[in-house]
Amino acid sequence: MKLLNYGPKGQEKPGLLDADGNVRDLSGTDAVLAGAGVSLDALDKLRALDPASLPLVAEPGRIGSCLTDVPNFYCIGLNYVKHAEEAGMALPTEPIIFSKATSCLSGPNDPIVIPRGSTRSDWEVELGIVIGKTAHNVSEADAMDYVAGFCVVNDVSEREWQLERGAQWINGKSAPTFGPTGPYLVTADEVADVQNLNLSLSLNGEELQNSNTSDMVFNVVQIVSAMSQFLELRPGDLIATGTPSGVGMGLNPPRYLAPGDVVELQVEGLGSQRQEAIAAS
Amino acid sequence: MKLLNYGPKGQEKPGLLDADGNVRDLSGTDAVLAGAGVSLDALDKLRALDPASLPLVAEPGRIGSCLTDVPNFYCIGLNYVKHAEEAGMALPTEPIIFSKATSCLSGPNDPIVIPRGSTRSDWEVELGIVIGKTAHNVSEADAMDYVAGFCVVNDVSEREWQLERGAQWINGKSAPTFGPTGPYLVTADEVADVQNLNLSLSLNGEELQNSNTSDMVFNVVQIVSAMSQFLELRPGDLIATGTPSGVGMGLNPPRYLAPGDVVELQVEGLGSQRQEAIAAS
Repeated sequence: MKLLNYGPKGQEKPGLLDADGNVRDLSGTDAVLAGAGVSLDALDKLRALDPASLPLVAEPGRIGSCLTDVPNFYCIGLNYVKHAEEAGMALPTEPIIFSKATSCLSGPNDPIVIPRGSTRSDWEVELGIVIGKTAHNVSEADAMDYVAGFCVVNDVSEREWQLERGAQWINGKSAPTFGPTGPYLVTADEVADVQNLNLSLSLNGEELQNSNTSDMVFNVVQIVSAMSQFLELRPGDLIATGTPSGVGMGLNPPRYLAPGDVVELQVEGLGSQRQEAIAAS
Repeated sequence: MKLLNYGPKGQEKPGLLDADGNVRDLSGTDAVLAGAGVSLDALDKLRALDPASLPLVAEPGRIGSCLTDVPNFYCIGLNYVKHAEEAGMALPTEPIIFSKATSCLSGPNDPIVIPRGSTRSDWEVELGIVIGKTAHNVSEADAMDYVAGFCVVNDVSEREWQLERGAQWINGKSAPTFGPTGPYLVTADEVADVQNLNLSLSLNGEELQNSNTSDMVFNVVQIVSAMSQFLELRPGDLIATGTPSGVGMGLNPPRYLAPGDVVELQVEGLGSQRQEAIAAS
């Protein structure tokens, strides 16, 4: 299934894509695309519905984040070799876990608001993992059994705030609109090989990131298993799995978002995003 | 008001303490001690209730976390001078923000489960701030207007995982039961001077931490204002504001939790916690 939220911000309705790519309205069901609502059990109930029996949405309008809320918005740092090189940082020996404020979650096509005082707002196309079952101390062999699905994430990052304003990265990862997520939560059964997906990003039409999830340092099952040794993952938790090379701070000279810039990004099979950068009001 | 959750884990009911210190049952109201349920508006509605009109709970039994869930569990690092010294780290020039997994939230008297593979599980008594109103770019002068109240937090920390297993601290801060919170959410109007509260912690009856919130490097309004420059704080967000000296890694020789150890901690006016450390099953 490809699940989504559509409608004005704060008033989104859940929906699913039917075989023809049309949006079907799930708001007459008890579907909630967040937390326990994206548990494997809840997804099985949605899977049992006949899409043709659901109202067709002729004009879905705006698409919101495919998760209306997240219990945790985790990220993995430096998870592509060339990105670690461009960041000038050593390749990690185990996954680097950090988090974004959950309040940064944003629609896939909503503007990126360059925050007040920011001069180094940057882009990061990433594969997102959505957890479907409580996971603690799970093995790599079992890890995929805890995954609900995948989505596109832009892990927008303010580099000065991330690297020069406090010892921890969360500062630069968390401004409002810094977490575009979606358009779709694509359930795991629809992704044949999550470690062989192209992902790319362009700025104003110029391609700057282009890689494949096969280039990850730690793959999806290694990430889920490793994280579950340190903490309990819960249904609806989102994990952005790191970005390949081509971010603004890695360019020579570095390049950062300015009002009017347009970022377009996609992960193969998971849909695409498009954001315009705007100044904070 | 002093608000709390009581009852078996996962089945807690909300309550409040009346003038005689008895628990009154709020489960017949729409009170939810989490997220928007602890917004300033929601708290005003609870304040308008006559405690004497609410059912008296003769035997409340177990006390749960005073917040049943949190949108974000933020922490401030190295916020007491002597603790920064014992940690061997430089005093920060602005608040160090990091986070714990929200799944580590735990009752104030629930056991601390020493996680599998841990040899350096440590304690940290802290003042917790609970946000009551969405806050973004707020000044220090206005910051207290966004605070719902305060609570006791034990920011339990696995030092090897925090400092030697990945570049970010979240690894060592997030295991299940590593976030005892409560017993009470004490609303801000009941705390005359939040920067003059004693806080202390003992291990097996021996006092190891004893300080006062007047010793903070960054005080409550500085923390709320500074965080709101980087991210949007939301109702129900919890911010643990840092621990004074006397943690296990600062002792000579260092000392860490072993099964059977009993940790007792309190913040003046906010209540006390008592946890027994147990081995992971």
